[in-house]
Amino acid sequence: MSETILIKNASQVVTVKGYSEKPATREEMANLSIIENGAVLLYGGKIAAVGTEEEVAAAAGGRLDGADIIDASGKIVLPGLVDPHTHLVHAGSREDEFGMRLKGATYMEIMESGGGIHATTSRTRAASAEELFFEGMKRLDSFLLHGVTTVEAKSGYGLDWETEYKQLVVSKKLNEAHAADVVSTFMGAHAVPAEFKSDPDRFIDLIIEEMLPKVAEEGLAEFNDVFCERGVFTPEQSRRLLEAGKRFGLTPKIHADEIEPYEGAELAAEVGAISADHLLKASQTGIERMAEKSVIGVLLPGTAFFLMAESANGRKMIDSGVAVALSTDCNPGSSPTVSMPLIMNLACLKMGMSPEEVITAATINAAHAIGRAGKVGSIETGKQADILIANVPNYKKLQYNYGMNHTDTVIKKGKIVVRDGVLC
Amino acid sequence: MSETILIKNASQVVTVKGYSEKPATREEMANLSIIENGAVLLYGGKIAAVGTEEEVAAAAGGRLDGADIIDASGKIVLPGLVDPHTHLVHAGSREDEFGMRLKGATYMEIMESGGGIHATTSRTRAASAEELFFEGMKRLDSFLLHGVTTVEAKSGYGLDWETEYKQLVVSKKLNEAHAADVVSTFMGAHAVPAEFKSDPDRFIDLIIEEMLPKVAEEGLAEFNDVFCERGVFTPEQSRRLLEAGKRFGLTPKIHADEIEPYEGAELAAEVGAISADHLLKASQTGIERMAEKSVIGVLLPGTAFFLMAESANGRKMIDSGVAVALSTDCNPGSSPTVSMPLIMNLACLKMGMSPEEVITAATINAAHAIGRAGKVGSIETGKQADILIANVPNYKKLQYNYGMNHTDTVIKKGKIVVRDGVLC
Ligand SMILES: [Zn+2]
Ligand SMILES: [Zn+2]
Repeated sequence: MSETILIKNASQVVTVKGYSEKPATREEMANLSIIENGAVLLYGGKIAAVGTEEEVAAAAGGRLDGADIIDASGKIVLPGLVDPHTHLVHAGSREDEFGMRLKGATYMEIMESGGGIHATTSRTRAASAEELFFEGMKRLDSFLLHGVTTVEAKSGYGLDWETEYKQLVVSKKLNEAHAADVVSTFMGAHAVPAEFKSDPDRFIDLIIEEMLPKVAEEGLAEFNDVFCERGVFTPEQSRRLLEAGKRFGLTPKIHADEIEPYEGAELAAEVGAISADHLLKASQTGIERMAEKSVIGVLLPGTAFFLMAESANGRKMIDSGVAVALSTDCNPGSSPTVSMPLIMNLACLKMGMSPEEVITAATINAAHAIGRAGKVGSIETGKQADILIANVPNYKKLQYNYGMNHTDTVIKKGKIVVRDGVLC
Repeated sequence: MSETILIKNASQVVTVKGYSEKPATREEMANLSIIENGAVLLYGGKIAAVGTEEEVAAAAGGRLDGADIIDASGKIVLPGLVDPHTHLVHAGSREDEFGMRLKGATYMEIMESGGGIHATTSRTRAASAEELFFEGMKRLDSFLLHGVTTVEAKSGYGLDWETEYKQLVVSKKLNEAHAADVVSTFMGAHAVPAEFKSDPDRFIDLIIEEMLPKVAEEGLAEFNDVFCERGVFTPEQSRRLLEAGKRFGLTPKIHADEIEPYEGAELAAEVGAISADHLLKASQTGIERMAEKSVIGVLLPGTAFFLMAESANGRKMIDSGVAVALSTDCNPGSSPTVSMPLIMNLACLKMGMSPEEVITAATINAAHAIGRAGKVGSIETGKQADILIANVPNYKKLQYNYGMNHTDTVIKKGKIVVRDGVLC
């Protein structure tokens, strides 16, 4: 394959440019910067030029000779999608629980029948690194087929060092082996393990004293996440853990206010988290603090959909000045999907976001939520050549023709990885 | 291609057998008849045998020599899906309305800005038969890619004979030209045209006197449908139209109780409709009458989802003895999708149906709703060889791994039309 690719005749190139330094907020989120009949030149794995065909030809100079030409007639060109919150590396699937849940089984009943997060923990502990790697590769293939080129991945199905380490090492290997970029988050505090049920503080001590130093030493993660929720970890425990992580160079993230208002959003602002995620029950004060401190709100409407709960109020957050991002929350219990396309539909239909806002939220703002906005999330000269070509004539149809995956072609670091909806 | 295909090693063959005579109701809807490690033999466009591999080999005799072999390891085999309610043949798309609607525009505001059903009517009137045919072919391709092998198609974007005729002729041509089966419904009474606003009864007269005889004479449709809803057609007008259709050999269908309770379900039972569709606001009495008279309830949870409304109560209908079927309602205003896979997810999450019930509702019961249960909708010897192979190891994962199209291979009348998720 040529190292130069020219995409031309696109009915729209949606660049989402201008927000690489700071995430888009308020009206900025609806500003997609669209070039009608646009072209994009990719060279050496980077975006070399973007504009009208004439502009791109002029910028290209001699580099067009021998370039691969992609005719995007009738299609649109977008930045590769970014998924900033997944539990990518795990073993087993829990479809039997879903049938129980639809029949009205409670979380406790499901746990008692051997389900819930502890089922995934047992299976992930038992799985070999090879199995986890193999499953992760397949899942990343599926992400690519849905237009997603960068995926955050959390540990947290070990709750012991051995397994957390195994998950983080697998994430690192996936990043090296797979076309998609994988960005690692350490989430030792995903649940309280049975052994520490009576004294969760001791588990937090263990993470801080034993696990964080090793994560930092081996450079296994960039972020440190915690499930701050009544019955899991308190805001005090979460604060202590996130502050400790900062001393090891790990940027805080937080699973906040998912089931009950618990001042998770406030805590995210206080500790300087890069993002607070879920936020279904975030308080107005918490939302305002997040806006002031530029904490990104990572919203997961698929999880609410699959758990049959009310979604987070994306509309209110945007109107309050929070930079909103979107994610699948891909995990085996509450959101077993890789479909960013459906997540974007849900953001419109369940959170009052506009077709423009959801694109910003799934690209540049999502890239900000994992510290990659300088590199991906928009189509701008010099950025990594991560491109999604969707088989719709305008961006509104991504949401209008709902429930469908319109991914046609995916380019990662300048290499075509999906063509005609099929992996290359 | 060989005219014999052997599908083998399927982790599950979901036959949905036993309901070709009468639709499945109540507990029957959860009875999928599953063969673990199953095989299916297709011969001469029909299903020649189904069972374990040994059973199928024994039934096959010499026909296995030279057969195409499909290895369905790790996958499941289902009947091709049936979509019993679409407005397949239409021109234009209305994505601009969607943005307005998300910003809170009312239906009237959208109509005044040139949108709504009348926008589609104008464009369909203006379109040539060739344009409608071309768009229809593309849409049917997309249905196949989502595992749907039989599609009902209604007229109703003409509201004048010339256009209604054009739509019905195009549907007939689509049925002949495309791999998918297209089953035609006449729906002259889809809306009250502006010319008849002050006297809708005269429009009903016109349909009865001028249109129905021609539909019958040319054999352009099997069903006669009406939008019975306050502000559109009254139950009295609907009854008159449906009874007249019966005299011309057209079986009644009815768009019933979508926006307000309007005794549409009751009317469906009274006139002996094959199905009543939508039913979001159907009364308990109406539901019971439908059960007594074996009127199939065709539920359209995608439409409710896309219009941000409460879904029909599928659970209650099944528990009351109604045979429930599912459909996309594919149309350019309230449900611009062909994704039966998402419709099935929505039926679980929004209507309380089980993973088993949604399969029955999207196969044999959907076939009953368009009079095709003797031919399609289940994997039984002698039926048409319409098969969906889905890339999941058990049927529960179709709903558990939500928001994804798991279609791997589609066979229509014994011919492979989709392979590896791509049209052949
Ligand atoms: Zn999570
Ligand atoms: Zn309809």
